[in-house]
This record gives sequence, C-alpha cells and structure tokens, in this order.
Amino acid sequence: MSDTDYMQMAIEQAQAAAQQGEVPVGAVLVGPNGEVLARAQNQMRRQNDPTAHAEIVAIREACAKLGNSRLIDCDLYVTLEPCPMCAGAIAHARLRRLYYGAGDSKGGAVDNGVALFAQSTCHHAPEVIGGLREGACADLLTDFFALRRNEPS
Amino acid sequence: MSDTDYMQMAIEQAQAAAQQGEVPVGAVLVGPNGEVLARAQNQMRRQNDPTAHAEIVAIREACAKLGNSRLIDCDLYVTLEPCPMCAGAIAHARLRRLYYGAGDSKGGAVDNGVALFAQSTCHHAPEVIGGLREGACADLLTDFFALRRNEPS
Repeated sequence: MSDTDYMQMAIEQAQAAAQQGEVPVGAVLVGPNGEVLARAQNQMRRQNDPTAHAEIVAIREACAKLGNSRLIDCDLYVTLEPCPMCAGAIAHARLRRLYYGAGDSKGGAVDNGVALFAQSTCHHAPEVIGGLREGACADLLTDFFALRRNEPS
Repeated sequence: MSDTDYMQMAIEQAQAAAQQGEVPVGAVLVGPNGEVLARAQNQMRRQNDPTAHAEIVAIREACAKLGNSRLIDCDLYVTLEPCPMCAGAIAHARLRRLYYGAGDSKGGAVDNGVALFAQSTCHHAPEVIGGLREGACADLLTDFFALRRNEPS
C-alpha cells in the first residue's frame, strides 16, 4: 500500500468520527513491514476523555498489540497536524515518521505553535511529511464545522 | 487537607512506582470540593504505554469518574514538572491549577522547554504553582537513578 492509501484509511476514520459528532480527525499506525497496527479516530466526547485524540488512541492500541512502549520503525498517518499532547506522545513512542494531512495554525505543534520536534529539549524527533492529501483532510474539518454552524441550536 | 498533604499523596504514588521499577512520578487529582478524584503513578513500562505518565492516568481516571472530558475547577498535584504531552493534556482537560514539585530542565514544558502555557497558541492555561515540596520530589528521582546506576548490569 502507498502513503496515500494509508492516509485514505485515516480519512475514513475521521469521517466515521464526524458521523458520531466528534471533531473529525483520524489516524493509522503502520508497522515496519507495512502492516496496519491500529486505525483510530478522535473520541474525546464519546469517551469523556480529553486525551482520546486519534493519535493517542492509535499509539496506545499499537503498543498494546506489540507489547512494547516504543514503536520503533513505525509510522503514523494522521489527518490533522498533531497538537502538543500528541506530538509529545509521538516523541515518547519513538515513531519513525509522521505523515499529516492538514496543517493546524491554531492547535498544531509540529510546523506551527511550539514546533516541538525542532526544540533542543525534544528527545526524539520523527521524520515529518506534512500536507499529504491536505485538501481532503482540511475539507473534513471545514465541512464539519460549517454543518454545525447551520444546525438549529 | 492542605496543598502539601495532596503533594504527599503524590509522593507516595511515586514511591510505589519506583518499587515497580518505574521512573518515580506520582500525581493526585483533586475536585472542586477538595475530594481526591484520582491518585496515579507513572506506569509506562508496566503497561507498555508511552502515554501512561502519572498525569495522563490521573486525568483519564478523574474524567471517567465525573463523566466529563473537562475537569472544571479541578487541580492537579504532580511530583515532576509535566512534559509537553502532559502539559497539552492539562490544557485539554481545562484544569484550574497545576501544582508541581521538582522542575525538569530536560523534559519539562511548563517553566522549562516550550513553556506551553505561556504560548499564544495555548487555548487554556492553568494557574501554576511550582516547587511545592521540591526537595522531596527531586530526591525521588535522584535516589531512583543513583540506585539503578549501582545495580549489577
């Protein structure tokens, strides 16, 4: 499978989240041999868990599957640029590569905000490929919030 | 109970973590009326979970208890200055106050490193009281790593 195939899976996770009224962000965690270790979606509201961003859910699931707190040679695909919490978790998990779709000028912490991986205090920085299927990933959020604005309150 | 009492509880959690071979960090989450909602310790290794820092475990447990992803008017006591992941989670959870013991010049993200809560992109910043029982909290880590260095390898 190609990088865009994995991102398509993440987009489908985000779409499923939107249908549940969650901010649509999806993630896929891929192992060293290209195997999908986890598919996950934002589930903060459903779980009443402020840490249940798609990236955190995917990392926890993949670690449980591998029986290891480090995801060596594993890659994460996520539809939105990770926030500080998720960027920190990505560093702790020692992920090899991060592919993200849409940039997030407000909440992002990779190429925006605190640019965590570029800081001297960051103990592990993955290779970062931003903007993969950027348009489709950004549309997920634009459409979601446009729909909510038009809902009767 | 006083602030130092809550921090003592967090210290006891850290001590219990050390006995299990975990980097000793403990946390206590206190509700609006002073009730203890969660006591938690770092359990990254035992759980094979890079997100299982004491703060994250405490936040998740308190949110589950309250059935809410926001911990309005709640305070967190933690023995070590939170890392970027945990500082991000604290912001997401909308905690009122953060009390921490020892500063962390390498891994901290509150008064060190990216100083997350001081950034314009940070959507919620708790009141921060650092250095509460600083000596005892720092000793936990110093003693733990000194012991490990002296172990036969």
